[in-house]
Amino acid sequence: MGHSKKESNKNNLKLTDLSSVGEFGFIEHIKNNVNIYNESTIVGIGDDSAVIKNSNMYSLISTDMLVEGVHFDLSYFPLKHLGYKAVVSNISDICAMNGICKHITVSIAVSNRFKLESLNELYEGINLACKRYKVDLVGGDTTSSQKGLIISVTAVGVVDKKKICQRSGANNNDLIIVSGKLGLSYLGLQVLEREKQVFLVNPNSKPDLEPYKELVERQLKPEARTDLIDFLDNNSIIPTSMIDISDGLSSEIIHLCNSSDKGCVLYSEKIYKDQILLKVCEEFNLDPISVIMSGGEDYEIMFTISSKDYEKLIEDQKDLHVIGHITNDKKTYLDLGNGSKSEIKSLGWKSF
Amino acid sequence: MGHSKKESNKNNLKLTDLSSVGEFGFIEHIKNNVNIYNESTIVGIGDDSAVIKNSNMYSLISTDMLVEGVHFDLSYFPLKHLGYKAVVSNISDICAMNGICKHITVSIAVSNRFKLESLNELYEGINLACKRYKVDLVGGDTTSSQKGLIISVTAVGVVDKKKICQRSGANNNDLIIVSGKLGLSYLGLQVLEREKQVFLVNPNSKPDLEPYKELVERQLKPEARTDLIDFLDNNSIIPTSMIDISDGLSSEIIHLCNSSDKGCVLYSEKIYKDQILLKVCEEFNLDPISVIMSGGEDYEIMFTISSKDYEKLIEDQKDLHVIGHITNDKKTYLDLGNGSKSEIKSLGWKSF
Repeated sequence: MGHSKKESNKNNLKLTDLSSVGEFGFIEHIKNNVNIYNESTIVGIGDDSAVIKNSNMYSLISTDMLVEGVHFDLSYFPLKHLGYKAVVSNISDICAMNGICKHITVSIAVSNRFKLESLNELYEGINLACKRYKVDLVGGDTTSSQKGLIISVTAVGVVDKKKICQRSGANNNDLIIVSGKLGLSYLGLQVLEREKQVFLVNPNSKPDLEPYKELVERQLKPEARTDLIDFLDNNSIIPTSMIDISDGLSSEIIHLCNSSDKGCVLYSEKIYKDQILLKVCEEFNLDPISVIMSGGEDYEIMFTISSKDYEKLIEDQKDLHVIGHITNDKKTYLDLGNGSKSEIKSLGWKSF
Repeated sequence: MGHSKKESNKNNLKLTDLSSVGEFGFIEHIKNNVNIYNESTIVGIGDDSAVIKNSNMYSLISTDMLVEGVHFDLSYFPLKHLGYKAVVSNISDICAMNGICKHITVSIAVSNRFKLESLNELYEGINLACKRYKVDLVGGDTTSSQKGLIISVTAVGVVDKKKICQRSGANNNDLIIVSGKLGLSYLGLQVLEREKQVFLVNPNSKPDLEPYKELVERQLKPEARTDLIDFLDNNSIIPTSMIDISDGLSSEIIHLCNSSDKGCVLYSEKIYKDQILLKVCEEFNLDPISVIMSGGEDYEIMFTISSKDYEKLIEDQKDLHVIGHITNDKKTYLDLGNGSKSEIKSLGWKSF
């Protein structure tokens, strides 16, 4: 119970700011203080989802909390899209274990400035995501908040016990593969933020978002890569490790390598850079690779496979890109293509 | 997608306050708009927990959100107790399905006024409850809030499919049974609120909480009735319906009767009124029955059994009280013992 420790803390005037330990530091701290009492707990804190043994099918549980003013800005984020995205980001966490999401619960706290009609829009988006992904909304809690809107979603899924992919299974020389177009969601957010500033200066301005449609849609209505989970299953590919890319590629590759007790080399030129990414990066004077490495909310999937499984991957049919390989030396490098390598530092989103 | 409906709402200036529909009205509204896509969903929104089919054991899922300033006041609620209580209230929801909680996730949002040491106290309480109830903390999310502390707990449990107790199974003439001492937690809250007011006027006052110890403990460190679930199992009693008493007896008996499409008669004199309840009600000039009917957070269990199971209940061994019976006429009555009956109205806690 650590009573003596607690008391000594109380006598100690130097209390610790959360920002000094960071979200990941705090999670690590919680994890180190947790005991496991049940045999059915296969994976606890520290992966995309927890894993619980039932029969041959295991249950997956993942949860996320979204806070107005921290994770979203309702001045340009429609409530319907917010509901959709809150569900999708949790479905993505279940995908990241090579599983299929079947059930969710949604809890919300709202200040009294919200009307029933607004919450109906939020739930329209939630229900739309449920329909799109064949997921059942089975519970939740609704309460009032002191300020703003808070949404907490828990997703429950299933996975065949032989197919579970944790972050920790990558082996030396495994290929590192990412799906889809990275960095678009972050650029979509930059566009929306810019238009908000323009609007604040001139409320009569009418933003032309058409050139940025794909970026804005990625930010406001992302999708989870359940199609990829089906593709892997249909082609009998079981990745050695897997993670979803919600906090930027840097942060995720570091998580994956740390969990696997391995390192990696990623090749800058192998990382797919879409035309729209290059164009808008130029407009915003941003470096495309930095956007991909640090931008969040792509909800694409990164996974590793044994090189002998490479032939099973039909790259033209899916938007899959081999971007590097796993190494034994525990350092995470980005090969910049000019003969120089830089060590990858986590620049992912910080919650505190 | 209801686009036309949404647009008509936007043109309609009369928006609906959440308080006018209430929490239960809103839940009913959400429930009516939800589709179920998976066969494995046995029970969705509207009971203490959702029920999901696995093998012969079903999974139970329940979730709660606690908001500072709405559900708790940190000026007298120690963070360690708060963590403990947040877990216990969710374990109680799993008990209320006749199940056993095995896993929880805990998400928190905190403003920057919280230090690491405070969160450690919160997690000490969470871990203590996990230890007491042999529950594994398997995941969660930590993020910042705009104001105050928000805690969202999701509990996952198991139940033999033959033993599930929903709210909806009560039959005509079934006996209604409640466990333990009701109303104590509410009185504990009144004592704490009173001492807070005294303290605000005179910061040098030292409250003597000793006479109210049991009440304050019930408020600050309630327990879930997992012992009762074991007792029922050991005595081969499968209740026909079950609910936990978190919002006051009135609210819960109405939920149970509505879900079962039945009514009831409760007998005022049969409802157990503890000595400490009577004493402190007199001090606060409160009616004991009103406190029991409307006071929240007792986390005792109410259930119904067929009268033929009555003999299996050994009342002396457990703190179980038969307080009335189920009727076919769909009205919920409280027999006041003086020849008069009053209809029970929900006076349970309101979240909006």
